[in-house]
Amino acid sequence: MSLDLAVKMLEKSLGKIVLIKLKSGRAIRGVLKGYDQHMNFLLEQSEEILDDGRTSALGTIVVRGDNVILISPSP
Amino acid sequence: MSLDLAVKMLEKSLGKIVLIKLKSGRAIRGVLKGYDQHMNFLLEQSEEILDDGRTSALGTIVVRGDNVILISPSP
Amino acid sequence: MSLDLAVKMLEKSLGKIVLIKLKSGRAIRGVLKGYDQHMNFLLEQSEEILDDGRTSALGTIVVRGDNVILISPSP
Amino acid sequence: MSLDLAVKMLEKSLGKIVLIKLKSGRAIRGVLKGYDQHMNFLLEQSEEILDDGRTSALGTIVVRGDNVILISPSP
Amino acid sequence: MSLDLAVKMLEKSLGKIVLIKLKSGRAIRGVLKGYDQHMNFLLEQSEEILDDGRTSALGTIVVRGDNVILISPSP
Amino acid sequence: MSLDLAVKMLEKSLGKIVLIKLKSGRAIRGVLKGYDQHMNFLLEQSEEILDDGRTSALGTIVVRGDNVILISPSP
Amino acid sequence: MSLDLAVKMLEKSLGKIVLIKLKSGRAIRGVLKGYDQHMNFLLEQSEEILDDGRTSALGTIVVRGDNVILISPSP
Repeated sequence: MSLDLAVKMLEKSLGKIVLIKLKSGRAIRGVLKGYDQHMNFLLEQSEEILDDGRTSALGTIVVRGDNVILISPSP
Repeated sequence: MSLDLAVKMLEKSLGKIVLIKLKSGRAIRGVLKGYDQHMNFLLEQSEEILDDGRTSALGTIVVRGDNVILISPSP
Repeated sequence: MSLDLAVKMLEKSLGKIVLIKLKSGRAIRGVLKGYDQHMNFLLEQSEEILDDGRTSALGTIVVRGDNVILISPSP
Repeated sequence: MSLDLAVKMLEKSLGKIVLIKLKSGRAIRGVLKGYDQHMNFLLEQSEEILDDGRTSALGTIVVRGDNVILISPSP
Repeated sequence: MSLDLAVKMLEKSLGKIVLIKLKSGRAIRGVLKGYDQHMNFLLEQSEEILDDGRTSALGTIVVRGDNVILISPSP
Repeated sequence: MSLDLAVKMLEKSLGKIVLIKLKSGRAIRGVLKGYDQHMNFLLEQSEEILDDGRTSALGTIVVRGDNVILISPSP
Repeated sequence: MSLDLAVKMLEKSLGKIVLIKLKSGRAIRGVLKGYDQHMNFLLEQSEEILDDGRTSALGTIVVRGDNVILISPSP
């Protein structure tokens, strides 16, 4: 198997902004400060992105991995 | 991996107010008194935050982790 | 970790009335007689609390933990 | 922990009528003939209880535990 | 615990017609040819039972256990 | 237990057309090239069967087992 | 069992475009850079395919396996 690249991608994203899409349909953007193999994430300066593009500040959060569809470093 | 920061964030939040968003769409706010690696939480002086911003007192509660989307220390 | 407090809270609630909120949207109130680490609960003199505040008697029940959102000792 | 009482309750209910509420919203009533730690149940002379209170005979059934919300000995 | 009776019931049903109710709301009837502890089932000459009582032939099938609500030997 | 028959059924179906019903309500038909104990399947020349009976080509696919309701060799 | 073929199919697809269908109803297309046994995937130059056929760029992403229905190398 070869998911080490994914870990490397997450490792390189530490301290940078990432986008997380959740099963609930929400998206969250924030600075990645930590993660584990269950895709639990620690974010800082995070905000929820609403359907109309507006954002709602969440600050520091821990996201439980089983809600996550995908994570992407912001381009 | 590097989620130790998340544990530290939770550890620092003990005795302080946190906000928990649940899969059901509800949000709960209360004083964090305990947690474990499944994101089960013990809260005191907790209250449910309704859609219209009003709150409903819950008091001391144990929240089962598999309902949790995210937890945040109140800013 | 530090969820021992939650266990202590449950331990102290043995023989007392607790409120359990379920994923189905229902709430159940009864005397807590037992529990385990999966949040399976044994209740006596339990009753379901309907949306309009009326109650429906259930008597002695075992609640399967994976239905539970939260448990609270009655104030 | 202290769920032994729940096992005792189930053990005492063997050969007696129990009521099982399922996540699907259905309820089933029957004579409890067996169970295990996953809350899989073997019932005999079982029947489904429909919303309008009528019943539909199911006979001998094995119910898979992950569908179960709660089980109660009939009063 | 005492679910051996359930295994015996399934063992006795081998080669006989059983009814399986699925979480999707469907029901399937067929000759039980095999099963395991996850409630995966091998059926032959199976058919889906539609809401209006009509049936649709499925032939030989393996049913994945996590879809199963209950299984019953046909009366 | 006795699900070896199911494995034999799958083994005999290698290289032959099978029908897979998914929890999403979709059905997929294709040539079975591999499987494992989680009911993950490798299919070739697969196609999705739409509600109106038309088909949409998918080619070679790996289906994740937890989406599967049942698998059947085509009659 | 014989899913080695699926692993070979994924291995051969490394560096090539794959199509992933998700439980949410979405489809994602991108260059496969990594995967593991849970069907977590690392994609680059990925894009979401909307219902009307238009696409929305996602870039580099890690997809959590429990959202995946199927993966297919693009024909």
